[in-house]
Amino acid sequence: MIYLDNSATTKPFNDVINSFVKISQDYFGNPSSLHRLGGEAEKLLTQARQQAANLLEVSPSEIIFTAGGSEGNNLAIKGTVLQHKNRGNHIITTEIEHPSVSEAFQQMKKLGFEVSYVPVNHNGIVDVEDIKREIRETTILVSVIHVNNEVGTIQPIIDIGGLLKQYPKILLHVDHVQGIGKVPLKLHNSGIDLCTISAHKFNGLKGTGILYVKQGVNLAPLISGGEQEMQFRSGTENVAGIVSMTKALRITIENMEENVKKINKIKTEYINGLKRNSNITLNTPVEQSAPHIINFSINGLKSEVFIHLLEEEGIIVSTTSACSSKKQSPSKTLLAMKKSKEIANSAIRISLSQSNELQEVSIVLNAIDKAINQLGKVMK
Amino acid sequence: MIYLDNSATTKPFNDVINSFVKISQDYFGNPSSLHRLGGEAEKLLTQARQQAANLLEVSPSEIIFTAGGSEGNNLAIKGTVLQHKNRGNHIITTEIEHPSVSEAFQQMKKLGFEVSYVPVNHNGIVDVEDIKREIRETTILVSVIHVNNEVGTIQPIIDIGGLLKQYPKILLHVDHVQGIGKVPLKLHNSGIDLCTISAHKFNGLKGTGILYVKQGVNLAPLISGGEQEMQFRSGTENVAGIVSMTKALRITIENMEENVKKINKIKTEYINGLKRNSNITLNTPVEQSAPHIINFSINGLKSEVFIHLLEEEGIIVSTTSACSSKKQSPSKTLLAMKKSKEIANSAIRISLSQSNELQEVSIVLNAIDKAINQLGKVMK
Ligand SMILES: Cc1ncc(COP(=O)(O)O)c(C=O)c1O
Ligand SMILES: Cc1ncc(COP(=O)(O)O)c(C=O)c1O
Repeated sequence: MIYLDNSATTKPFNDVINSFVKISQDYFGNPSSLHRLGGEAEKLLTQARQQAANLLEVSPSEIIFTAGGSEGNNLAIKGTVLQHKNRGNHIITTEIEHPSVSEAFQQMKKLGFEVSYVPVNHNGIVDVEDIKREIRETTILVSVIHVNNEVGTIQPIIDIGGLLKQYPKILLHVDHVQGIGKVPLKLHNSGIDLCTISAHKFNGLKGTGILYVKQGVNLAPLISGGEQEMQFRSGTENVAGIVSMTKALRITIENMEENVKKINKIKTEYINGLKRNSNITLNTPVEQSAPHIINFSINGLKSEVFIHLLEEEGIIVSTTSACSSKKQSPSKTLLAMKKSKEIANSAIRISLSQSNELQEVSIVLNAIDKAINQLGKVMK
Repeated sequence: MIYLDNSATTKPFNDVINSFVKISQDYFGNPSSLHRLGGEAEKLLTQARQQAANLLEVSPSEIIFTAGGSEGNNLAIKGTVLQHKNRGNHIITTEIEHPSVSEAFQQMKKLGFEVSYVPVNHNGIVDVEDIKREIRETTILVSVIHVNNEVGTIQPIIDIGGLLKQYPKILLHVDHVQGIGKVPLKLHNSGIDLCTISAHKFNGLKGTGILYVKQGVNLAPLISGGEQEMQFRSGTENVAGIVSMTKALRITIENMEENVKKINKIKTEYINGLKRNSNITLNTPVEQSAPHIINFSINGLKSEVFIHLLEEEGIIVSTTSACSSKKQSPSKTLLAMKKSKEIANSAIRISLSQSNELQEVSIVLNAIDKAINQLGKVMK
């Protein structure tokens, strides 16, 4: 099997699973308990928080452990908006966010907040000037995805952070779920107040994630109670999940340079191959895109049919994001890029990880050719 | 080691960990993906939902998988209150709830909702008539804990459900986190609209739980996005965690009768032994209390000191709930029961599981005697 759907989810590292097992067996205490079993679990938690902080180059008190990317995004958005509603009722985001951001904005809109959606250009990139133009006296939050999950475009987060440094009352949240380990992002002193990552996108376990919350930023918790996680996220901590996520993060960050080089080479091979095929339109721009995502359309063919044909050859690709794939609605990012509905309906996403290999490329390209020929004949 | 803090958390069953590992390794696909790996993961998820529904005797569409008890309680409370705020702004709970309920109510109060707190009698039991008295035209939610986590008292949920059947616009939420597997609770057709359980309290893994949401009950999600879990709780599903929780639930429910018999016998031995000690005041009432929780106070001794002495003998007990233990504040349940501050400050909780043994009782009782003598001498 050639697995090319790493943006939907990744296979957990063996070391990650092993560490989960060890801690579940030997350190099952509740970190809040006063006795030795609690103390041991708490120590592991503190170490994990310190290690995650080191890897992200922030402070341990800025690390909030969550149950994943969707929780992180919702906590960042609803938590700040509800906390700071007296400051203003206007919030800004883009047209190409993951549903866990865009739906959170929708919910805030229903509660009476005003939402501005910043567009992207035909390459899927936001213009910082467009964000600036939307800023009002009453703006309290800007939320922008770093690496788009459907086409892989990289947004100018550092420029946006620079702009927002001039507006200290506006918080900046970044959905970094697809960026972590692939496209570097400096968190400290870059104007970013909140940043979401999710472990299962970097070979950690599902149900674990981190929300970075800059020192001094206050949130209304979604889950209140025992006041765990700096009071921002209550509940008995999933210590085994957290420690194993930190292990995945360490492996990911330590090998990032090497991995990105490898993945970039594979991506270039795919792009060159796909470009040679006159039936194919590349949707991912070559500039300002992440090393691991390649989005393309096969002229006139519905994506669902196509991915099943590739699957028969043992090749796993996807249509758009996993979340949206069941609804079979056309890719919202492609529509925001002003691509035609036809292009959006025939989009295929290849998403790579460090465990993919250069040798796979020709196999996949051949299978794509074969599938196009097969479908072409059927359609004639 | 004799572990007597099972209400804080339990040791996961080996079978539970094994099933987690197997699924993390072999079925890591995203259940929302259209390809085979996604389909396999989705099938496991559907089976787990069906099995959990069978075990709880409800419908699969009424099972919402969460990240634990605190999330379940917060989702139930905030989700219904925000969803139905146009119906009314009055909500009711008791004085002896877990912080994940009482803090959620506090947050709603800050948002402008009116909260009534129903008291308990000296045995820690709520009177259904007291709840009835609080009901107003504008009441939209009643939330009552089934088995109290500090003293083990059982609330008359079935009577409360019966009462509320006469008020179809008022939803009933039950925190069943300490009750599951210990004290039966019929969910179907009993007036209960929402019910929370958490896997790590029944030998499942931390970071997994279930919120039962009765057919037709609508919730504003805390985590919105990809519309997983009947749209009530978005995010890539923790399939391995969910399947392993269902395994823990099956083992728990299938062995419930036998386990409860065993635990009840152990509890009776503890109670008889503790009663014989004139330095000890029992706080858990003998009637209407769960089989696994025994709360008592040692006259004049601070609980923290005492639990450390027992720990030196290899015996793990706790002060109050794990959440509150670090704050070293006196047990709120005992204060609600009108116990003196002294009693509340010297409270010890023994909490049992099916892996405790009758033979442990005399060892523990002797260690308690020894510790009392030791401390008594020091204090003289
Ligand atoms: C960009 C982006 N944000 C957020 C998420 C949500 O993360 P999770 O599945 O961990 O909830 C995903 C993936 O599903 C994503 O690709
Ligand atoms: C009665 C009760 N409700 C809720 C919870 C919260 O569950 P969790 O720790 O899974 O968030 C607990 C335990 O911590 C509890 O004892």
